[in-house]
Amino acid sequence: MARNYVQQIQDLPIGFQSSLDEILVGSSRTRSSNSLVTDSAAGATAFSCRIKTYNAAIAVADDKSPCGTVLEAAKLQRGMATGLVATSRITHATPAAFSAHVSHRDMEDLIAEYQIGNYSLGPVVDLMFGGGRCHFMPNTQANVSCRMDARDLWSEARAAGFHTLSTRKQFDDLESRSSAKKLPILGAFAPSHMAYEIDRDSASQPSLAEMADKALHILNSATKKKSAGFFLMIEGSRIDMAAHTNDPAAHLRDIVAYWDAVTVARKFVDEHPDTVLISVSDHETGGFSVAKQLTPEYPEYLWNPRALEHVRHSIEYISYKLLSPLAGDDQEARYKFVRDTVFADWLGIKDAKHEEIITAAQETDSTKLRQLLSTAISNRAQIGWATHGHSAVDVNLYAYGKDAHLLRGNHENTDIGKFIVNVLGLDLDSVSSKIKADRIAQGTQAVKETPFGSQDLDAPEHHLAAAH
Amino acid sequence: MARNYVQQIQDLPIGFQSSLDEILVGSSRTRSSNSLVTDSAAGATAFSCRIKTYNAAIAVADDKSPCGTVLEAAKLQRGMATGLVATSRITHATPAAFSAHVSHRDMEDLIAEYQIGNYSLGPVVDLMFGGGRCHFMPNTQANVSCRMDARDLWSEARAAGFHTLSTRKQFDDLESRSSAKKLPILGAFAPSHMAYEIDRDSASQPSLAEMADKALHILNSATKKKSAGFFLMIEGSRIDMAAHTNDPAAHLRDIVAYWDAVTVARKFVDEHPDTVLISVSDHETGGFSVAKQLTPEYPEYLWNPRALEHVRHSIEYISYKLLSPLAGDDQEARYKFVRDTVFADWLGIKDAKHEEIITAAQETDSTKLRQLLSTAISNRAQIGWATHGHSAVDVNLYAYGKDAHLLRGNHENTDIGKFIVNVLGLDLDSVSSKIKADRIAQGTQAVKETPFGSQDLDAPEHHLAAAH
Repeated sequence: MARNYVQQIQDLPIGFQSSLDEILVGSSRTRSSNSLVTDSAAGATAFSCRIKTYNAAIAVADDKSPCGTVLEAAKLQRGMATGLVATSRITHATPAAFSAHVSHRDMEDLIAEYQIGNYSLGPVVDLMFGGGRCHFMPNTQANVSCRMDARDLWSEARAAGFHTLSTRKQFDDLESRSSAKKLPILGAFAPSHMAYEIDRDSASQPSLAEMADKALHILNSATKKKSAGFFLMIEGSRIDMAAHTNDPAAHLRDIVAYWDAVTVARKFVDEHPDTVLISVSDHETGGFSVAKQLTPEYPEYLWNPRALEHVRHSIEYISYKLLSPLAGDDQEARYKFVRDTVFADWLGIKDAKHEEIITAAQETDSTKLRQLLSTAISNRAQIGWATHGHSAVDVNLYAYGKDAHLLRGNHENTDIGKFIVNVLGLDLDSVSSKIKADRIAQGTQAVKETPFGSQDLDAPEHHLAAAH
Repeated sequence: MARNYVQQIQDLPIGFQSSLDEILVGSSRTRSSNSLVTDSAAGATAFSCRIKTYNAAIAVADDKSPCGTVLEAAKLQRGMATGLVATSRITHATPAAFSAHVSHRDMEDLIAEYQIGNYSLGPVVDLMFGGGRCHFMPNTQANVSCRMDARDLWSEARAAGFHTLSTRKQFDDLESRSSAKKLPILGAFAPSHMAYEIDRDSASQPSLAEMADKALHILNSATKKKSAGFFLMIEGSRIDMAAHTNDPAAHLRDIVAYWDAVTVARKFVDEHPDTVLISVSDHETGGFSVAKQLTPEYPEYLWNPRALEHVRHSIEYISYKLLSPLAGDDQEARYKFVRDTVFADWLGIKDAKHEEIITAAQETDSTKLRQLLSTAISNRAQIGWATHGHSAVDVNLYAYGKDAHLLRGNHENTDIGKFIVNVLGLDLDSVSSKIKADRIAQGTQAVKETPFGSQDLDAPEHHLAAAH
């Protein structure tokens, strides 16, 4: 989908290959231990601990015992520098499964404690760039916290030696080179998730590629002298989230932003050929199809990338704006706002039908509103969705650099964890045995709804929590 | 989907790999010259002529000039034996694109003439196994013909030296070994398409694997003395057709039957290591998802292979039976037939709702009836579909044997044609120049509806013809 789009909009030749196309080596199978359809927690634990576990498990096995991760082992056994880069909250399932051990992904308060070293192994993550500052802030600071308790992990992190960053300026001021003494770093550039690429204000948040580039060079500089190397996990976290919302335009832009990060990482590998780069998804989301039949008559064979070209905001952003009190009570003004701003300007839909406009203007339920906006874009693009959840389809596996050929072919997701263990010569079991299990469950599993509007409104992970 | 199903039904380990999983090398990109979503004719021409052409083109370029195919060049330039095996009509798009040159796929009468050598190159196909006898029969034989004219190609083929087969017994009697003098062979085991695997009566039709096995050994024996080798195209043709009907159970069984054919072909490669096997699809069909959300509430992460286990017939077969006059007028008897035979026995659905039964019993429109049956099975399996047509997604590429490693990675479908040209050392342009273009269009493009009931009722290719 993204390739077709970029080819058509930029008038590229049929043979154009993305930064990922060029390094395709095979596919990854995604089922978890308790379902044919995995969630992100079990999916990430397959990569981090090379085991199958239950949906929602963060680096714990089926029996909830902790499993040592490749990140922890790289740090403890090889003296490598370690990093996590994500556009979600840094406490979200994927980065969490490399750096914490909890029985349910929603325990993000506890995950944050792990990430600043508050567990039996001490601090193991040297660099974190992402969102999720709210899980480090005490609930006494109502507007910036989503913690259930009054702990100030941000200050605790500083006290433990972390350099904390929360603004674009602080990010920019961070020197990429000769930064050994700057580690560890905790950079959280949004209270909750970072913005979708399609909504991102580049003056206030760095891109995934910028974070990847800086992380690669800081970690490399930090370990250059002792030649220990580094382990870095980079996630284009919100590709999945856009698919949960069935938002094809936000999905597309986050995919292309991810390509840019891959380009940055490949350049690093070219300059440092003793490095291996792996790119893989934990699962498919949305039951996405690059074709959609719109009428009972047999469909023409086509889809329409141009329908995504002029979309300027995510459905999440638009629905938040539409449902905010500021969007106005005056019915005529609201109709014009929906027609001129929402459809024409933000969605790039100049031919919206009266019916579409009036329905969107009157809808007050966020789930229904999002569905309506999704249908407006997806039908014009002729893109299909089967679910707001995940699917069981295999995902593409990409690899580049040293030993990348060992990942060729069709693999279980656990094989990717095993590959990392093998190329780094790690012993995960010995790490597992060092992790005390007493911090795996919280006293309460209650999840606090975060107060940051569009970026968390009805976030899929809260639905998921309800499903488990 | 098929792997999950087989694993669950046969209680196989998570790591089980199908005969295809084991030989995955990359992916193929499927767009045609005039659409991001290809049809099978353009898709097959990419493989046979290594060019992009328009949807519906059978081995002709955008300007309708003929393009020499790898099959023709293998025969003419290398003296190789050649074969086509399919479960569709042998005159259908995929086998046609290796053996005929016509401006539209629906000209199957003309394609049949090409296939028995009635064009400038003379006979180039040594062996054909499949369906489609009706396009070789004169329209004077109303019950067995789908030709527009009175030509008897079946007799013409015999006169030209073809051994003609139309029954399972004739197929079984055909010796696999020492059959050089038996070539050429025209085996057409059904008037139109051969049966879906789920409907197949093994006493009357061979399986795809059986046809593949016999074809491989006959072609190999025929060229053993002169060491010329052979080119064979084997298609599991109806995998696609089941997806057009959004019929997950028929789709599944034809996929598994295809795996069996791959196993047969891999065994041949193991015994003849100078052979290369390529397995690839021309496109995805159905916008198929291995997950489907059934309610507005956020879905659980699962799909249900067991729902496909006890399905005993294709939707095509069932809808044909239901709409045939024999299915009865007595409303009570019809209700019981639908409940006990259609739902409980044929679909394996014991918990059909009264509403489902009565709607199916009363539906007289075949498209709506099929949709209803598709929904009954697909919802219980939690399998999603976005279209009755094709989609633009990349498809898996598999290869095994000599030089198979050259196909690793992400490729345009034309690269697969180029690979065959390169490994066999062919010159397609020289073949193109030998093909006279005067037989590319028929006097009339009219398409005769075939009279063979379930196997052609509303067949997707006729919809496609209408769309172009």
